[in-house]
Amino acid sequence: MADAALFEFLHMEMVAELWAHHSDPGPGGQKMSLSVLEGMGFRVGQALGERLPQETLAFREELDVLKFLCKDLWVAVFQKQMDSLRTNHQAQVLPSPHWAPLCPQGTYVLQDNSFPLLIRMASGPQYLEEAPKFLAFTCGLLRGTLSTLGIKSLVTASVASLPTCKFQVVIQKT
Amino acid sequence: MADAALFEFLHMEMVAELWAHHSDPGPGGQKMSLSVLEGMGFRVGQALGERLPQETLAFREELDVLKFLCKDLWVAVFQKQMDSLRTNHQAQVLPSPHWAPLCPQGTYVLQDNSFPLLIRMASGPQYLEEAPKFLAFTCGLLRGTLSTLGIKSLVTASVASLPTCKFQVVIQKT
Repeated sequence: MADAALFEFLHMEMVAELWAHHSDPGPGGQKMSLSVLEGMGFRVGQALGERLPQETLAFREELDVLKFLCKDLWVAVFQKQMDSLRTNHQAQVLPSPHWAPLCPQGTYVLQDNSFPLLIRMASGPQYLEEAPKFLAFTCGLLRGTLSTLGIKSLVTASVASLPTCKFQVVIQKT
Repeated sequence: MADAALFEFLHMEMVAELWAHHSDPGPGGQKMSLSVLEGMGFRVGQALGERLPQETLAFREELDVLKFLCKDLWVAVFQKQMDSLRTNHQAQVLPSPHWAPLCPQGTYVLQDNSFPLLIRMASGPQYLEEAPKFLAFTCGLLRGTLSTLGIKSLVTASVASLPTCKFQVVIQKT
């Protein structure tokens, strides 16, 4: 019954709490709160990553890892799969078998057409500026899971039209 | 895979974050952080309560509600049932059919013998003083769910030996 909603409600409270008591009202304070949320997401992602079965931890292809994020991680956290994975501006809808060869440069765009943490927000362009605080935790979550899987990355998110959301993952080659 | 652990990890981060940046080091600051956590739990419990099926919202017997908390709510949040429910110092292990008549005064003790939010803590009496910050959210969660079900309550928790934990629910008659 309630278990699927628990994470969503808790996330909402966390955002509200950080904004209500933690943040200076200016842009500096907001940036700080975003960074705190991202950090929490990172550590949760790391911890989730550590619980993965050993065979998962052993995959070495970047693309297998991204596929894992779009399917297994997303289902575990949001009870749905990511809607599409793109790289180099070529769209591929999961679970197409044809997306595998499209990934040369380590930049991926993961799109969720109805991102659960945005879905309760009123839509309309005037609400777009509220979106970043509902994305920071999940950016961290992706970055943290990747980190446990041995991949250093930068993850950002953007919203053009609610509740569709794109996460851009740029792999950091070392 | 990871979904059962998500809440646990997120809760851990929330506690750590509130203690690291939110709290004055003194007892006043700690009390404030406990109250913030309890409030977050209360609102999450309320929201979960609002998602319950109508037939659940319709039960009017206090005891049915407590039974619901011990079984359905606990399974939804912690993937296990509460281990026992007591009232007036008479122990009854769930799901005994005999516990129904034991509830005249509106005070209940719900015991979890391996409370998941305490289970990762090192045991030993020296860690007992750390326990309250891992209990405040859940006290709020119980109070919030009861509130949506039309019951005003006070909920406190105590730990005598980790990871066993008792929640005391005192119903507030109006």
